[in-house]
Amino acid sequence: MKDEGGSVAKTNSGNFFEDYEIGQVLEHAVPRTVGPGERALYHALYPERRALYSSDQFARDSGLPESPLDDLAAFHVVFGKSVPDISLNARANLGYAEGRWLKPVFAGDTLRAQSEVIGLKQNSNGKTGVVWVRTKGINQRDETVIDFVRWVMVKKRDEDAPAPSTVVPNLKNALEPADLTIPSGLDFSDYDFGQAGERHRLSDYAIGEVIDHVDGVTVEEAEHMMATRLWQNTAKVHFDATQREDGKRLIYGGHVISMARALSFNGLANAQIIAGLNAGAHANPCFAGDTIRAWSEVLDTAETSAPGVGAIRLRLVATKDGSVGELKDEDGRYLPGILLDLDYWALIPL
Amino acid sequence: MKDEGGSVAKTNSGNFFEDYEIGQVLEHAVPRTVGPGERALYHALYPERRALYSSDQFARDSGLPESPLDDLAAFHVVFGKSVPDISLNARANLGYAEGRWLKPVFAGDTLRAQSEVIGLKQNSNGKTGVVWVRTKGINQRDETVIDFVRWVMVKKRDEDAPAPSTVVPNLKNALEPADLTIPSGLDFSDYDFGQAGERHRLSDYAIGEVIDHVDGVTVEEAEHMMATRLWQNTAKVHFDATQREDGKRLIYGGHVISMARALSFNGLANAQIIAGLNAGAHANPCFAGDTIRAWSEVLDTAETSAPGVGAIRLRLVATKDGSVGELKDEDGRYLPGILLDLDYWALIPL
Amino acid sequence: MKDEGGSVAKTNSGNFFEDYEIGQVLEHAVPRTVGPGERALYHALYPERRALYSSDQFARDSGLPESPLDDLAAFHVVFGKSVPDISLNARANLGYAEGRWLKPVFAGDTLRAQSEVIGLKQNSNGKTGVVWVRTKGINQRDETVIDFVRWVMVKKRDEDAPAPSTVVPNLKNALEPADLTIPSGLDFSDYDFGQAGERHRLSDYAIGEVIDHVDGVTVEEAEHMMATRLWQNTAKVHFDATQREDGKRLIYGGHVISMARALSFNGLANAQIIAGLNAGAHANPCFAGDTIRAWSEVLDTAETSAPGVGAIRLRLVATKDGSVGELKDEDGRYLPGILLDLDYWALIPL
Repeated sequence: MKDEGGSVAKTNSGNFFEDYEIGQVLEHAVPRTVGPGERALYHALYPERRALYSSDQFARDSGLPESPLDDLAAFHVVFGKSVPDISLNARANLGYAEGRWLKPVFAGDTLRAQSEVIGLKQNSNGKTGVVWVRTKGINQRDETVIDFVRWVMVKKRDEDAPAPSTVVPNLKNALEPADLTIPSGLDFSDYDFGQAGERHRLSDYAIGEVIDHVDGVTVEEAEHMMATRLWQNTAKVHFDATQREDGKRLIYGGHVISMARALSFNGLANAQIIAGLNAGAHANPCFAGDTIRAWSEVLDTAETSAPGVGAIRLRLVATKDGSVGELKDEDGRYLPGILLDLDYWALIPL
Repeated sequence: MKDEGGSVAKTNSGNFFEDYEIGQVLEHAVPRTVGPGERALYHALYPERRALYSSDQFARDSGLPESPLDDLAAFHVVFGKSVPDISLNARANLGYAEGRWLKPVFAGDTLRAQSEVIGLKQNSNGKTGVVWVRTKGINQRDETVIDFVRWVMVKKRDEDAPAPSTVVPNLKNALEPADLTIPSGLDFSDYDFGQAGERHRLSDYAIGEVIDHVDGVTVEEAEHMMATRLWQNTAKVHFDATQREDGKRLIYGGHVISMARALSFNGLANAQIIAGLNAGAHANPCFAGDTIRAWSEVLDTAETSAPGVGAIRLRLVATKDGSVGELKDEDGRYLPGILLDLDYWALIPL
Repeated sequence: MKDEGGSVAKTNSGNFFEDYEIGQVLEHAVPRTVGPGERALYHALYPERRALYSSDQFARDSGLPESPLDDLAAFHVVFGKSVPDISLNARANLGYAEGRWLKPVFAGDTLRAQSEVIGLKQNSNGKTGVVWVRTKGINQRDETVIDFVRWVMVKKRDEDAPAPSTVVPNLKNALEPADLTIPSGLDFSDYDFGQAGERHRLSDYAIGEVIDHVDGVTVEEAEHMMATRLWQNTAKVHFDATQREDGKRLIYGGHVISMARALSFNGLANAQIIAGLNAGAHANPCFAGDTIRAWSEVLDTAETSAPGVGAIRLRLVATKDGSVGELKDEDGRYLPGILLDLDYWALIPL
């Protein structure tokens, strides 16, 4: 723990590709207690209206002790903690897989995060490599509340450093319904569709159905910076206008995820709880002044073991051009108006 | 509750004029639990400093159990819930009447809202009509905490639909002092004028007196959008810059109300509690970059049944040109610099 | 308490130089209860990550009952309350001295503020004078939680008013370590450097060492106005774009202090608690669009009486030009890129 003395650089320069090894566990710094302030800010920053996260009464009527913190807020807190160790020198956030929400996060909970390195592959240019980590969010009772894999492209510190053995983890394309964890006590048998805002239950959605969520939000620098800071995410590009010639700040991809998910209330108000993250791509960068819109495609549906609770697998797409239903060009590249392509499971009344 | 199947549009397109009928009760969606986060955000968004809403100790010394949520925050939450059912297709928010604050809202309370249609009048152009509703905010104990009438101009879906019988409700021009509800236990006998910030009591205000509140706030897009989202108000025009050629977003009229009321601290610091809303007009639209200022005119004063508690009826005017005391041109139209003309009752120490 | 009647101006025009006299005590208005909302907003507005203020668990492991409100948030609340009485007509905020944090502020605490006039000196131009005040923040148990001296240049109302006797208080250039108050129960013996984010303890810092905190934040109008309002600071120049030709608002100096202190996490993550403020200068004004960066210089180190707890005296410099280590030109004037020069004591594990 003892440093060599005052002359050593004190600031964190982050990890480079050659700093990672398979099986390494990184304990991320700065535990965080969340509460009613974070909840109110989430509602101020995103047009989220799902009743389970808005009303303690609705949550109790659904078998939970009170309204939890939004599932994505929990994700952002955990993700943010991993940034200084995983993605400070990242060139790109390449993907997500096998994300599972295991316990709701309630006001007063304290979250910490850790990541295990599960994959490494140096790129053929010898300058960068891909690192796969499984990141966990853990509460004050040492319970894992969230768990996901992400992989990032990281610079090498020294281009002459030898390449590690390539290990590419075997990841599921999508979680099975049986992989999902249902919050303890959840019961949608007496679900109040009127108070929730829409009357559509799982059986009203058809696989392949595309829902245009209609609304749009034009984003501002102050908002995305406040959101990203709230999650204690320290990546410079989100805050420092001198990093780019046009003075714009790159918007944290998670801000786009939360905005799109909130916009999807209109058409998916009853897809209350996020239970699994199958895949995700930040297709193009988002900047202040962009107007974010969203559409969803129903990919799958399933029953669960909990009373009245079904699962719906959704593709959630955020755009900055208002297009609906189109994703990629004929070469398989994302169209320039696409910001986000996310594949997730939500819990919804049967 | 069951939909016809996956092919039906899932999003809310709102109600049109011919969807309303006299006596119809609309239960608005998404109950909302409010708490210390909403309170802190209110203070971050508006320069509100009234002691009763800032200090639990001051509230206790005034006979309340703790500091309540700002009366306008309670209003905005209830108003916001009514938007998807009442004003999503509104062309204009025409007026308010008979607004009463019946119970303070405290941290932990859960609010829901319902509206009853009490008036309908098709316009002579056959394309729009006016709908009057009485909207109630109701807490988790089924107590009505707030109750107000508003009327909006709503588009017809089908211009050929027959006009309903015209019913124009008989509304009071202003509430009488006896119509006001005093929060249970309120007692201003030992009111601490020093801690409240001004020494003026009810008898220091003369009917007809005009108070220039002096201060100004230049508003920003990020602020009004955060405020409006916090109330879960979903009207597109407040968030989506592509709705107008100049890329500006129309600021929610309630944002102007809260800003003007907060500015009125300077000169009316002791007009602590809003008890009644007599009338209100959003005279001209407000946009980011406008500098909001405010002035008040004393319209009436009265005693109440509570110890040391008086009532003051105020005209609160918000401007974007810094004018004071002028409202309308010779043809009775609001001057272009006027944003808001609000008529309300506040409770103030005798 | 009784006013002369309705015709008297109701708004606060603030105090002028001739309104102050030595020994005068001003009880500042509007007590404020702080809570989890203020805490979350602090994290949204500043990139603050120090573990003691982020995690209740970390605070308990350090001997405190829970995570306190950020020390600077407490300072801002108290400072904000003093503005209407002290600096509404101030031309310049000239300096700080002898600032002491005496008790942590916890959620639910109610703060009020009072100032005693301890110095007066009319300027030779006869138009302005310097006022020194010692300002205290006091909680609901009448305990002083914070105490600091500041001096401001204030306009005279009447240039012909006679000059008061000059009294210049005898202030310490810096607090001695023995002047610092350690929060009751604080114990860093089992300090978790991993969770805190850096491994550097007091002995790792050398007097004279300069730390470049590397990160930068480009500030926005919406953010600094929300922050400044949150502290109920009412100074017009921070909110009203019509006060300057370029439409910019002067950013509250305390916003720069909090931003710089938060940025100093990177290199001083373990300088957890602010215990003393020795001196401070707002060297140049800060405006929206500026990118704030920070560097620190270690000025002194000391042990304290609490287990495992040391003290570190730091110069914290905020810049808008990214310079490091330079402060003044050859004539002793601050360089144009310097925003803040602050001298403070923090508590840090031995």
